[in-house]
Amino acid sequence: MNGREGIISFLRGGDNFLIATHVNPEGDALGSSIALAMALEAMGKTALVYDRDSTTDLYSFLPGSERVMNSVSSLDTGGLSLVLIDCNTPRRAALDGMPFLHTAVIDHHETEGAFGEVKWIEPEVPATGIMVYRLLKDLGTEITRDIAVNLYAAIMVDTGAFRYRNTTPESLRAASELAEAGADPGLIAESVYESWSKGRFRLLCGAISSLEIVEDVAIMVVTREMFRSTGTKAQDTENFSNFPRMMGEIKLSAFFREEEEDVWRVSLRSKGGVNAAKIAEGFRGGGHRNAAGYSFEGDIETAKEKLIQAASKL
Amino acid sequence: MNGREGIISFLRGGDNFLIATHVNPEGDALGSSIALAMALEAMGKTALVYDRDSTTDLYSFLPGSERVMNSVSSLDTGGLSLVLIDCNTPRRAALDGMPFLHTAVIDHHETEGAFGEVKWIEPEVPATGIMVYRLLKDLGTEITRDIAVNLYAAIMVDTGAFRYRNTTPESLRAASELAEAGADPGLIAESVYESWSKGRFRLLCGAISSLEIVEDVAIMVVTREMFRSTGTKAQDTENFSNFPRMMGEIKLSAFFREEEEDVWRVSLRSKGGVNAAKIAEGFRGGGHRNAAGYSFEGDIETAKEKLIQAASKL
Repeated sequence: MNGREGIISFLRGGDNFLIATHVNPEGDALGSSIALAMALEAMGKTALVYDRDSTTDLYSFLPGSERVMNSVSSLDTGGLSLVLIDCNTPRRAALDGMPFLHTAVIDHHETEGAFGEVKWIEPEVPATGIMVYRLLKDLGTEITRDIAVNLYAAIMVDTGAFRYRNTTPESLRAASELAEAGADPGLIAESVYESWSKGRFRLLCGAISSLEIVEDVAIMVVTREMFRSTGTKAQDTENFSNFPRMMGEIKLSAFFREEEEDVWRVSLRSKGGVNAAKIAEGFRGGGHRNAAGYSFEGDIETAKEKLIQAASKL
Repeated sequence: MNGREGIISFLRGGDNFLIATHVNPEGDALGSSIALAMALEAMGKTALVYDRDSTTDLYSFLPGSERVMNSVSSLDTGGLSLVLIDCNTPRRAALDGMPFLHTAVIDHHETEGAFGEVKWIEPEVPATGIMVYRLLKDLGTEITRDIAVNLYAAIMVDTGAFRYRNTTPESLRAASELAEAGADPGLIAESVYESWSKGRFRLLCGAISSLEIVEDVAIMVVTREMFRSTGTKAQDTENFSNFPRMMGEIKLSAFFREEEEDVWRVSLRSKGGVNAAKIAEGFRGGGHRNAAGYSFEGDIETAKEKLIQAASKL
């Protein structure tokens, strides 16, 4: 049996679980995984949490984040029941080809494959954290403060702090109940959104100063020199490309990041009708409709012109 | 009788109301005022909404925003019952010295004076919109979609999209119920946070370029010249003061806005332990722990130094 009922049977029936989520995890992946593991332990089971990529400092505030394992090489996975969280193929969780006793999937992304003896996939739900919350209610597990913090962070991150179009009444209701259970909304938001280093903020200031708007395409640039002078790295530019989306009249936001001399990475974020993936494909890149990217080697001014031209055709 | 019960009697007992809110209104001031006026009309009363400052394009998405009057000079206010919303002195609403039949106050700011025959003031509540929502439930007024949008926007703006420390379980629960009643969280957030004019974005770029960080106090400045060159107004700076709060190491963010030659308005946003209200009071201003402000006339460089000094003592 698939769906939530199937997952409930799967969890009740197993004893030893490996909860695994996708590489480069964000708050929903980590929070949902940790919360589920805590709930399984409260049910008298054992549960390990695996994510290949180290949790960055950003999510170290999540209670239980220290238990996330970055390797399964020492485990006899054949004796474990796998629950994939926030993804639905072993490849996305860096678990390709590993043996498991049983397998299940809890995810809110479109299914990419046939993996999983039991699957519960709801692409309409804004966050896997909401699905896990529903699950814990059904299982009758106590929502401890630690679980509440993890699930609150999960829902907050995947709804963009309740600002994305996917935000449902249920997202807010679950958040409210989790706050009642001890999650501190302000503190969690501060941990995720307001812990920038001064260097990163100065880098953003520099990027914003570089802003050009041509034919409703906003272009920002970060050079290697800017990284150097602010003591920052490529990963510090996460979300920079979203900033110009604040403008109502923008149709596309493009963020150019210098990787090496004359080698650039371009992140595109669309707004409204423009298909960012289509533009990126024209430059041998790819992505989704709202977020895509490509790389190029050469003169940035020429590249900007080409991009504006490509965007004007859509 | 004061408090919510007093306000209920006041509203039930009156016939013709003037709902007025503070100058330079934000979403909580406008949304709460419009929602209350709509509810009073549904109760068979007349209700005018007054705010001295034009509602900018930013809040034109609020249903009923077109009814906000910018002047009361043509009104015989002596026949109207005044309800001050989101402020508690006639001065803050640019109504100094006007006569009224009766007067009431609904506010979540600390009381500044003795004004109001009936007062309901709850400084612990994050938004006046939550108070109005409670009120409408008590009054049994239907929460129409239009009312829901206004109150959702009110609560969202004053909790910083549920990211400020003031965000309570009730804020999220009310938001959830208002979303059920027809408010669209994503659309409202986009209207408030992602519909900036290019001029406003350029103004932010300018403000960010002015950033100084001294002893964990971040200071940004917007001058009249910057307003002129970007074609923007004071209201366009809403939320600017929050921007530097992204930095983890900042304890206070101060935003200086030039109102007239050498006349400045300072908005303070605190983070962590610093009491912004206490600092503002030292400069004859006021506000909340996390958000406060004051005005001064004189040299800005001296004022910056005094502020940094005041912050260092806390």
